[in-house]
Amino acid sequence: MDVTVNANINSTLKTRKDNMNTIDAYKKLDETVDMKKVLGSMYSMPPDISIENHMRFITSNLGNPGLYPGTLKMEKDVMEFIYDLVGRTDCISGRIVSGGTEANITALWIMRNIEKSRNSGRKKILIPPTAHFSIIKAIDLLELEPVIVPVDKQYKIIPEEIADLSENAMGIVAIAGNTEFGTVDPIDKISNIVNIPVHVDAAFGGFVLPFMEDKKSFGFENEMVRSITIDPHKMGLSTIPAGALVLRNADMWNYIRFPSVYLTERENTSLLGTRGSGGVAGAFSSINHFGREGYRKIVDNCMLVTKYLAKEIRKIGHFIPVEPETNILTFDMPEDTYYKMERKGWHLSRTKNGNYCRLVIMPHVTMEVAENFVDDLNEITS
Amino acid sequence: MDVTVNANINSTLKTRKDNMNTIDAYKKLDETVDMKKVLGSMYSMPPDISIENHMRFITSNLGNPGLYPGTLKMEKDVMEFIYDLVGRTDCISGRIVSGGTEANITALWIMRNIEKSRNSGRKKILIPPTAHFSIIKAIDLLELEPVIVPVDKQYKIIPEEIADLSENAMGIVAIAGNTEFGTVDPIDKISNIVNIPVHVDAAFGGFVLPFMEDKKSFGFENEMVRSITIDPHKMGLSTIPAGALVLRNADMWNYIRFPSVYLTERENTSLLGTRGSGGVAGAFSSINHFGREGYRKIVDNCMLVTKYLAKEIRKIGHFIPVEPETNILTFDMPEDTYYKMERKGWHLSRTKNGNYCRLVIMPHVTMEVAENFVDDLNEITS
Repeated sequence: MDVTVNANINSTLKTRKDNMNTIDAYKKLDETVDMKKVLGSMYSMPPDISIENHMRFITSNLGNPGLYPGTLKMEKDVMEFIYDLVGRTDCISGRIVSGGTEANITALWIMRNIEKSRNSGRKKILIPPTAHFSIIKAIDLLELEPVIVPVDKQYKIIPEEIADLSENAMGIVAIAGNTEFGTVDPIDKISNIVNIPVHVDAAFGGFVLPFMEDKKSFGFENEMVRSITIDPHKMGLSTIPAGALVLRNADMWNYIRFPSVYLTERENTSLLGTRGSGGVAGAFSSINHFGREGYRKIVDNCMLVTKYLAKEIRKIGHFIPVEPETNILTFDMPEDTYYKMERKGWHLSRTKNGNYCRLVIMPHVTMEVAENFVDDLNEITS
Repeated sequence: MDVTVNANINSTLKTRKDNMNTIDAYKKLDETVDMKKVLGSMYSMPPDISIENHMRFITSNLGNPGLYPGTLKMEKDVMEFIYDLVGRTDCISGRIVSGGTEANITALWIMRNIEKSRNSGRKKILIPPTAHFSIIKAIDLLELEPVIVPVDKQYKIIPEEIADLSENAMGIVAIAGNTEFGTVDPIDKISNIVNIPVHVDAAFGGFVLPFMEDKKSFGFENEMVRSITIDPHKMGLSTIPAGALVLRNADMWNYIRFPSVYLTERENTSLLGTRGSGGVAGAFSSINHFGREGYRKIVDNCMLVTKYLAKEIRKIGHFIPVEPETNILTFDMPEDTYYKMERKGWHLSRTKNGNYCRLVIMPHVTMEVAENFVDDLNEITS
């Protein structure tokens, strides 16, 4: 790495030129990571038009919506598209948030407060071992009592085993495309078996599953599903930050309603205050740019590359613990192979469950990238 | 308003041209609000260079810092500048967050978890009636027990009256520039009197007080101050979103540490996951652009306009309940005058305490804007 950064923001840097030189160096330093070789992140570069439009709205703040009526309409348009992905209900209501973490925390906050309003004293929440760490954060914040539910070999919740556990629980989290293995909990069966609210974390899968031929049900068509996290900035190829939280019923916002008299909106019902609108413009643009047909092609292609990688990695002799249901692939990889691959410039990741190597086959992981990866892996393994 | 928006994101809009037309209309709709007449918001347009640099970093994500080494360095530079504003300590540690709300929630989360680790069972938190609604959100989220402390006529905490209240409390929130009146709690005296952690919300005042001639102490030089919220995107004139949370001691992050094995950072200690880096570049640029001298001039000028407005508004005959300590001015204004002013295009706001009209004299509220405001108010009142 031969980018030298000598910035001292406290020193005498004062001119526009100095300012630009320093930030140029930081930008170059960011670019020392070759994003084409990042196989462990849920982010791909959005289309140019999304970046362009994001930029035009960076000074708008949905945290004070009365001042930005255009942005407010734009958010509604984005949500209309998303409502169709998650199973529209009569009183459906959602909004763009900063990402899956904010959406998951907010969903469990609402769930707890609804339960609290009933004075049941219940704080038990069922979660699979694959729950994203934002769920663990939410549990800590909200002082819930987590119970890890049994999963099968594909790391999917076993519906038959949760009936007893769900007694005296305030709710359950199910995942549509878990972060580690990309597998999808049987949300229809879970909804049939339990009599408690289900929060679905579809941060990753929400922009994947609706565009597959074999559509897996994860939305509000399942009676007990009350809230859904779905992130445009992952497989929706929007700019960051743009997550979304959707509620079955707009009334549910009432449980996190706070007076904010000095804003244009008299009450506030979101975890955060300031809500930059660039991500909303980015989501609007990506959705308009790709449309349902575009997303179908993207998902098709990601699955093609995923299957190719699974086949080739198996050939090389690595064990694949879970057949990929979405575009995430895990396999057994000795520590030293992992480090050798990293030294070749590949940015990989590991699972907490099973300590496998984990690849996220985002759209920037083209067949060519996959072939290069296989070549390098072959060379290192042999 | 003659902007017509006919967008239906689900319909056949497919071409880049359509996309741009729709978003153009939304942008125009946002622009129907004349920002020069917004006197109730804590936001002014940042300098061009900050917007420009924000844009260059919108695809970087500090939530996965290993992939963006340049952005990580840039964040450190910004924090170095901020450390000097809040009273540097040996183990000081802070980071850029999405805004004051995230910073305040995170601070109280850490405070509660530290208390919890001692098994004291304490959940009582002292807050002034002027506490920002993000503090109320945090209290609800964390299930704390709020106790409203007495304030004087300037809405400032009365230190002598909190000694007893602070017994068996886990902490106290004090404000350096409260949202409603801009007044500053006597943080030095509070720190001397109590024996519990103090969280200082300097979201607004953090970029004001250090640049005034009569410097009020609000930082870590006060022994019991453990955490400080300070927002570059308010009076630091940075792009949104860019708040900051600073801790007296880096060890305090340990109380909100969550494993995130599949990211480049093995443990995560922030409320949110995704952390867009545009705001960091914006903060870096604004700080470099203005420097301490620039901020001093800005604050000087805002105070000049504030004093002018106070004088003129008093002349017109409106009661001013609190002498402005920072660039926020409140006064008694009958409901119908308020609505008449709003019909003239002024965007005002109201306080919860006392139901006063509230003006935030941000840098875009120049002497000229202030004169126009006074003229309109004169016309309506007479």
